[in-house]
Amino acid sequence: MSINSFGHMLRLTTWGESHGPAIGCVVDGCPPGLELDEPWVQRFLDARRPGTSKNVSPRQEPDRVRILSGTYEGRTTGTPIAMMIDNVDARSADYSNLPPRPGHADAAYDAKYGFRDPRGGGRASARETAMRVAGGAVARLVIPEVNIAAAVVEIGGEQDESRWEEMLDEARSGSDSLGAIIECVATGVPIGWGAPIYAKLDAELAAACMGINAVKGVEIGEGFAAGRARGSESMEAKKASGIDGGISTGKAIVVRVAFKPTSSIGIGGRHDPCVGIRGAPVVEAMVALVLADHKLLHRGQCG
Amino acid sequence: MSINSFGHMLRLTTWGESHGPAIGCVVDGCPPGLELDEPWVQRFLDARRPGTSKNVSPRQEPDRVRILSGTYEGRTTGTPIAMMIDNVDARSADYSNLPPRPGHADAAYDAKYGFRDPRGGGRASARETAMRVAGGAVARLVIPEVNIAAAVVEIGGEQDESRWEEMLDEARSGSDSLGAIIECVATGVPIGWGAPIYAKLDAELAAACMGINAVKGVEIGEGFAAGRARGSESMEAKKASGIDGGISTGKAIVVRVAFKPTSSIGIGGRHDPCVGIRGAPVVEAMVALVLADHKLLHRGQCG
Amino acid sequence: MSINSFGHMLRLTTWGESHGPAIGCVVDGCPPGLELDEPWVQRFLDARRPGTSKNVSPRQEPDRVRILSGTYEGRTTGTPIAMMIDNVDARSADYSNLPPRPGHADAAYDAKYGFRDPRGGGRASARETAMRVAGGAVARLVIPEVNIAAAVVEIGGEQDESRWEEMLDEARSGSDSLGAIIECVATGVPIGWGAPIYAKLDAELAAACMGINAVKGVEIGEGFAAGRARGSESMEAKKASGIDGGISTGKAIVVRVAFKPTSSIGIGGRHDPCVGIRGAPVVEAMVALVLADHKLLHRGQCG
Amino acid sequence: MSINSFGHMLRLTTWGESHGPAIGCVVDGCPPGLELDEPWVQRFLDARRPGTSKNVSPRQEPDRVRILSGTYEGRTTGTPIAMMIDNVDARSADYSNLPPRPGHADAAYDAKYGFRDPRGGGRASARETAMRVAGGAVARLVIPEVNIAAAVVEIGGEQDESRWEEMLDEARSGSDSLGAIIECVATGVPIGWGAPIYAKLDAELAAACMGINAVKGVEIGEGFAAGRARGSESMEAKKASGIDGGISTGKAIVVRVAFKPTSSIGIGGRHDPCVGIRGAPVVEAMVALVLADHKLLHRGQCG
Repeated sequence: MSINSFGHMLRLTTWGESHGPAIGCVVDGCPPGLELDEPWVQRFLDARRPGTSKNVSPRQEPDRVRILSGTYEGRTTGTPIAMMIDNVDARSADYSNLPPRPGHADAAYDAKYGFRDPRGGGRASARETAMRVAGGAVARLVIPEVNIAAAVVEIGGEQDESRWEEMLDEARSGSDSLGAIIECVATGVPIGWGAPIYAKLDAELAAACMGINAVKGVEIGEGFAAGRARGSESMEAKKASGIDGGISTGKAIVVRVAFKPTSSIGIGGRHDPCVGIRGAPVVEAMVALVLADHKLLHRGQCG
Repeated sequence: MSINSFGHMLRLTTWGESHGPAIGCVVDGCPPGLELDEPWVQRFLDARRPGTSKNVSPRQEPDRVRILSGTYEGRTTGTPIAMMIDNVDARSADYSNLPPRPGHADAAYDAKYGFRDPRGGGRASARETAMRVAGGAVARLVIPEVNIAAAVVEIGGEQDESRWEEMLDEARSGSDSLGAIIECVATGVPIGWGAPIYAKLDAELAAACMGINAVKGVEIGEGFAAGRARGSESMEAKKASGIDGGISTGKAIVVRVAFKPTSSIGIGGRHDPCVGIRGAPVVEAMVALVLADHKLLHRGQCG
Repeated sequence: MSINSFGHMLRLTTWGESHGPAIGCVVDGCPPGLELDEPWVQRFLDARRPGTSKNVSPRQEPDRVRILSGTYEGRTTGTPIAMMIDNVDARSADYSNLPPRPGHADAAYDAKYGFRDPRGGGRASARETAMRVAGGAVARLVIPEVNIAAAVVEIGGEQDESRWEEMLDEARSGSDSLGAIIECVATGVPIGWGAPIYAKLDAELAAACMGINAVKGVEIGEGFAAGRARGSESMEAKKASGIDGGISTGKAIVVRVAFKPTSSIGIGGRHDPCVGIRGAPVVEAMVALVLADHKLLHRGQCG
Repeated sequence: MSINSFGHMLRLTTWGESHGPAIGCVVDGCPPGLELDEPWVQRFLDARRPGTSKNVSPRQEPDRVRILSGTYEGRTTGTPIAMMIDNVDARSADYSNLPPRPGHADAAYDAKYGFRDPRGGGRASARETAMRVAGGAVARLVIPEVNIAAAVVEIGGEQDESRWEEMLDEARSGSDSLGAIIECVATGVPIGWGAPIYAKLDAELAAACMGINAVKGVEIGEGFAAGRARGSESMEAKKASGIDGGISTGKAIVVRVAFKPTSSIGIGGRHDPCVGIRGAPVVEAMVALVLADHKLLHRGQCG
């Protein structure tokens, strides 16, 4: 059991405080012989790097990842893969004198561990997800047959994309924030991944996504719409979805994730009006980790 | 790692095919000295027993649970607690010649394991949840300070309870089925349970509930509503919910679970028009298991 | 993490007090399609059943095992396999008024759990190993290419078999007891099983065997003799043993296990003068469980 | 399940190839509030650093450890503690053209993973143990009530210390090597740590020690001597040892570990005539990790 690791066969352990000297992760159980280098991982990190648009925090970290073990001549060795990102831009000063911020997990964290680390949200900060994205990059190597793509489908209750820019500007200038819903589709997953009852593929996807900072809901396939439907209308009842009884069916797997509005209202400088905007690469990474883990599990038990 | 076990410190392993000779479970890691006897567990099982109303399958199993180990003179010994229910009413004949039923997990199960067990849905059947309820009964002993109550809040999209009986009759006679949404509230959970990042309390509640047969969505607190809100309106942003950053805050924890419409349309005899109706005791049991597990985890790491 | 389960992919959970109503186990992660029936398991249990000679306790349990789940038409289904043995001969009366017996784990058990279960040594009794043997029987199905054979090689320091009968008679009539050393050889293990560092095959064999009741030492290959040798003399240095760097080499794996003398001196009736005599089937079972687990692990990670 | 992690509540994951850019580890589950800084860890590393005497390899790494996460103002935060040592002295050239060396785990490693990493023994090298010693340093903070001390008690079969220097010189000049036996004593362990059957304290100590590079045997208390004794003579039978039935008794726990002779005969420069000499700090570290893990486990289950 590990309270800071994730996965069964392919296991991700992350470490690092946002404003400590570095953040990192260890991926172990990766099969040997897969092509892995820093540019491969960097590419996925760059898709989430803050500072790429006015809608995300203007912190200027380059987020350069280093691979410290687990590869030789460009291929995985089968041994643990350690990756690390040095924290260049600390700016701890901005956070040093703040009282616990509601919704930012400080009060509960404080009570659990007995003190508060004022250095900027500690591990509960969104930057920690960088290492999940790095882990997801490795996971993708295990499942080349699978395509995973996530995108924002709703912001602040609005599905019409043409309105989003305006809504985000309003939120930014009004020191307000917006929730978002992200949809992730995985195609190419063959039939048979997932183990019934307690390593059900959907249950593990749910845990992986609910564990992302700011996520408050996860649904698979029709999700809550199925909870409100009749069998005669429901796609879930008429045809198999991507997951049935916890096992993949060969059809597309659709996961939808709800990000709550960020609660940093009025702090200035580091205000993300919609944390969900950066959620897509993280959701993809977590989905990749779960699918890769299950591919290995299935291969192990059933050959 | 166990693909058929659930939990870290307090661990539940279930076994048994619905139409095999028996179903059972083993709960291990339970603290010693807690009062446990068969009537305590039976009480929770009776709340879910089929045959108690016209809206659930008329199978006449008494579902009598036996405790085979782990107790002495009415108290837990700290060793594994094995529980078992003999399957009295098999009625396998009803299922013996059926083709795979869509949405009933046979096709995926078949492909994964290489054959199909025609004896009535095997483990993917709702009866397997009896052992989860039994496990939940033990878990509740670990967390006497917590009150857990789940109830149906929506059937087929309708929140008005006065309409439900009618809708269920219609569905039954029309060989249709209805989805349902169940809400579970846990109060009395102190601050500090849950471990950030990968054993987040909300992530584990999500996995526990998504793993229940027929569940397609799980949300915590405001859930998907938060995904559609603005920070200025959102309760999640204004005041802490029951879980923040994966750790309990001391406030009520609210989990909402969406059950899809059952896909047994037109089979007759064993037709549940709304499987969600029996979902409340199961959701409570899974929530109890997760909370009890986390109480022990927290005590172990932080004293 | 489970404190009463063993294994990674192929996992064994046992339960049951020796003088409770039954003892049982659950094996999960077993691949589907393997031929498994009760006679197969019974055969291994009969090899360890007490009452087969004057040198073991004259308790008359038939130890009949039942398989309650996980098989269909004689083959494993891939789902958890539950097995159970009802306890026919309790004779609890013999143990009801005893003070804690040194070396029988009562005092430590009592202090840990807060009370003493006087019903005959509880789980610390040698009968609990019956379910390990049952688990081992299932494990063997996973590794048909491997042959595992264990035998007593020393009793009370004596390697000459012709002296054993006499020594055992002396010990029995003098209310004394004897230690024993068992050697187990596994052949046919291909190269590559085991994962370096923390799932080393030898480390896991050590844990599996040291966990057997009354075992005080485990050695692999030359063992302690290597600790006393020079490289120029040592077989370990000259040629690869069955395990090198935690991974199997394709050569025979030799494990030697030391059983301490039983401490039931003078109790009469249930006096095993040498508990090691019954150790061979248990050692074989534990070796089978570890090897099977590692076959699946290797297949999962490396294909 | 993690094949490169060790422990239940207090978990150690190590990474790094001996001749890669760095080696490191992550310790998670450590309780918060314990005083931890780099000098504390460095002290234990210096006790094993090569180059301190003529009998160990003259590689000149300073082995400076850095703590990258998990502490704040000198105390543990309860979050994962990452530690790292940059590899200063590579000298890969010495190893680049060697064929697989018997007993050095290359052939088995190669077959398992499909290639050979010629950079100096990869993970199977003794230098990897540096991170175990670092992990052990953290573990000791969890168990301040326990004293752990290991020492060499035999070299090449000789228990008389006055002969060791001479034997080592002979071995060095004759390009031979010597096995060694290390004895580790832990005092101050209270009654009650360890969980019967599969998380038995002795089984886990056995796994921890057998997993150390070059170890071929582990015994607890009287060990193999008990296997050769009579109950009337045996200390194990007369009085409780430090572990009984897998649970600590409050008495001193004695573990003895056998290191085989190193197989690097004749390579020159990097010839350790007796790898066991450096084994004591590693054995202490592994014993500390197991005991600390079990203290937390016991606290979690039993309060």
